[in-house]
Parts: sequence; C-alpha cells; structure tokens
Amino acid sequence: MIEIIAIVPHGEEILDPKDKESKKLRDAMDHVVKRFGELNLDTIVVFTPHNIRIGDHFAIILTEYASGNLGKRRLSFGCDRDLGETIYKNAKNKSMPVVGVNFGALEGKSSRIMLDWGSFIPLYFLNKKHRKILLITPAREIERDVSIKFGELIGKVLKNYEKRIGIIVSVDQAHTHLESGPYGYSPYAKIFDERIIEILKENDFERLKDIDEKVIENAKPDSYWSFLILLGILRENSNFRVEYFQYALPSYFGMLVGLFKKIE
Amino acid sequence: MIEIIAIVPHGEEILDPKDKESKKLRDAMDHVVKRFGELNLDTIVVFTPHNIRIGDHFAIILTEYASGNLGKRRLSFGCDRDLGETIYKNAKNKSMPVVGVNFGALEGKSSRIMLDWGSFIPLYFLNKKHRKILLITPAREIERDVSIKFGELIGKVLKNYEKRIGIIVSVDQAHTHLESGPYGYSPYAKIFDERIIEILKENDFERLKDIDEKVIENAKPDSYWSFLILLGILRENSNFRVEYFQYALPSYFGMLVGLFKKIE
Repeated sequence: MIEIIAIVPHGEEILDPKDKESKKLRDAMDHVVKRFGELNLDTIVVFTPHNIRIGDHFAIILTEYASGNLGKRRLSFGCDRDLGETIYKNAKNKSMPVVGVNFGALEGKSSRIMLDWGSFIPLYFLNKKHRKILLITPAREIERDVSIKFGELIGKVLKNYEKRIGIIVSVDQAHTHLESGPYGYSPYAKIFDERIIEILKENDFERLKDIDEKVIENAKPDSYWSFLILLGILRENSNFRVEYFQYALPSYFGMLVGLFKKIE
Repeated sequence: MIEIIAIVPHGEEILDPKDKESKKLRDAMDHVVKRFGELNLDTIVVFTPHNIRIGDHFAIILTEYASGNLGKRRLSFGCDRDLGETIYKNAKNKSMPVVGVNFGALEGKSSRIMLDWGSFIPLYFLNKKHRKILLITPAREIERDVSIKFGELIGKVLKNYEKRIGIIVSVDQAHTHLESGPYGYSPYAKIFDERIIEILKENDFERLKDIDEKVIENAKPDSYWSFLILLGILRENSNFRVEYFQYALPSYFGMLVGLFKKIE
C-alpha cells in the first residue's frame, strides 16, 4: 500500500546548499524526510531518469542490491525484488514495453546495480536500516498514454501490495533557464516550470497531458516522463493530494520538492 | 572489419594464477594478448553475460564510457558509440528483441556504464590507450535461432565497418563439475564441456545447435548464448578458423581460451 509520495530534485545543490535558493530546497527536503520518517516504510520505489536509460522500454531493476557513491558518500541497499518482479510480470503480461534488468550475477551479493545520482541523492536522505528500494526508469520515446498506463498498472500493484511503500519521483525541471547553462536559454523553460507549479497548486496532474511537445523539447526537463507515470499512479490512488511544495531555481535548472499526503 | 576473435574466460583465477590449471589458462591468455597486440585494433567488441542482464532482450551498451574496478585494479574506456548505434539500429529495423542502454547522462563524462567482471577481466589484459570498446550482452530466454540471427547481423555490420575490430567472447563453461561447488555436481557438466571442445577441435560451430536443452540446463554454462551469437558472426565471416585453444578446470567450472585467425 502506498503511504506517501514525494517529488524530489537530484541536483547536488541540496546535499551541500550554499545559496538561498538551495537552502529553500534543502529545508523542503528535510520536511519530506521528516514526513517519510514518521511512517514505518518497508520499501521506497524510486523513479529515476539517470539509471538504466532505454529510449523505448521502461526498465525495472531486478538486482538483489543497489549501491554506489557520490564523492565520499557511499550507499548500499537491498532491493525489493518481489515487488519488482510483480510489476514486471504484470506489465509484460499486458505487452507493455518493459524490461527487467539484472546486473552481474542472477542472485546473491554480485547481483548489484550501481546507484545513479538521480536515486543516490534522495536516498542519501532516506537511508534507513533494513529499508529496501526498487528502482524504475522512465522512457522518453514511448507514447504519453503508454507511460500513463504503465503508471496505472504500478498504482494498481502498489495499492494491493501488503508492504508499506513510499514513492520518490526523482526529477529536475526545465534545464534551459540560463544562457550560460550547458543547454543555453529558452523562453520555454519558464513556461514549462510554471505549468508544473500550476499543476501542483491545483492538484491536477491530468493537465500534464496538455503540455505541448514543443515546450518539453525546448525546456529540456528530465521530469516529464516520470510525471506521466506518476499521473497513472495517482489515477489508481485518488486518495493522495498535494500537501506541500517548494520550487527554486538555484542555477540553470528548475528544482522542485513536492509532497503528497494520503486522505483517509 | 574483424581482425581477430577470441573466446576467453572471466574467472579471477587468470588474474593471479596459483595452481597448474590456472597457469595453463594464463599462458593461453598471454598468447591471445600477444596476438591482439600484433594488430592495430581500434575497437574491441566484448560479449559478456554479466553486464546488463535482460532475459528477453539483447542489450547494446550505448554509453560514452565504461569503467569499473576489481579490488584495487581499475579500468576506464571510451565506447565505440557509432558502432553500437549502427548495430542497434540494424537490429531494431529487423524487429529483433534488442535494447540500446545508456546510463547516467545521455552524453559526456556522466554517460558511463559500470564494467562487470565478465568484461573487466579480459579487458584488464587488453587495455591499450585510445582503444575503444563496445559491450553487448546475450539473452537466455530468446530462441536459439534469433541469437544466431543477431550474430549474423553483427557479423555483417562488422564485415563492412571501416575500423579494425577484435572480438572477445567472455564466457565460462559448465559450472556443475564439483559437488562442493555453488551449483553442485551434474554429469552433464563434463558432457557440455566435451561438446564445446569437440566444436573447437573440428572448427564447426554449427554443431552448437545439436546440444540438448537438458545438457545446458544441468551443466549451467554462461557461454552457450554468447556462442550462438558467435556462430552467427562466423557464418558471415567464414574466413575465420580456430587457430588455438586451451581448456582447463581449475575449480568447479570449465574455463576456455580459444583463438580464431583470419584466413586471407
């Protein structure tokens, strides 16, 4: 059963916040961590765009372990393979474009995927003994409706799953806010981020579908495809509402923390 | 163009050989390294069963870099993305079950896959400045004929590729030679390994197809599916002959070094 859902950024800014905007985000992240900590979660499902990247298939990581480092920080987790296999088999049975990905050995300590920064950064805050994770990656070349349907399927599985689940959607928003940034400037950056803020304000993820392809292409977020999956999850778990969010723009890309609470 | 092909093991035994059997393999490996060194290769294509493992899809690694460590040993390579993309697109156009896998960022230094021990161990010997690699993983749930056809497609692409290619098929043979091994004992281990030795002796990879499923299931090699791809490559590059091979059984699994030379 899903207990809590959060949208979190994965810029390194939130690890060691130096400017005011980053501190705003870090405070928001600390709030998320506090709320997650109040629940006795078994597994955190992390949607990350920086682990296995396959354009035309969703990937569900089926290794026994996931570990990695970011500078001197180091993390290692057990993975919730049962949940991963269940989602994978369900999606496969429905002929969805999905692959189950192992790495190294099929079982045991050498069945281990590397954590990417998209999963590492939020998990650095949410690391807790015996807590398992499940990594899932979105796919950019898949039609919007199929991403939403994949989310619905995940939402259904999680709704009926006996363990207590937290969901982390690890994403950053438009990457073209500044001429001096690696992707240059586009006026669509502001448009995209404002649309996302509106969606959160109005708690209406269905409006994601209205965002024009041209806006996405030019704003260059890494969030859109994970948000489509989140939309599907929310459709199947309509008892979640945006409780809180914080947007900031510390550098050239928009960063967002959002928290959904469960309405009993 | 393919310049040379080798079958190599990836047990750690060959890094620090201690017993006589392992030393035999290390000598054979040194021979392979010498022969590879005589050619001015641009790219080494490595088939490894321990990197990305997807049961029902071949994976072609499309990251810009691949790096990893084994104990204190460390390696980092640039990847031949052009070649990877060409093989991927060709296979995709033929509706083969294949995925192109990136990791981290889409481009640049953060587009990087971790080396598995199946690629690390042979590449430790074949590491050379400016030499690129391409990692490809086999898939166990795919029909034999499809693996062979995937090999034919790769063989065709490589035949017409302007750069100088070496192929490494990184595999180990039956894993059920010893009761005390992690997979226990099966009489099929000996049967499997003997069949592979016969195939090498007679330079007749077509006979791979005759190996019964029951033999494979019980012998538990990790080689069979990569060998099917190799068969396809050899069909398209019939100017390669087994020049040399060495089999040994240092512990519970069969290890093999084999070298193919080009007949001008």
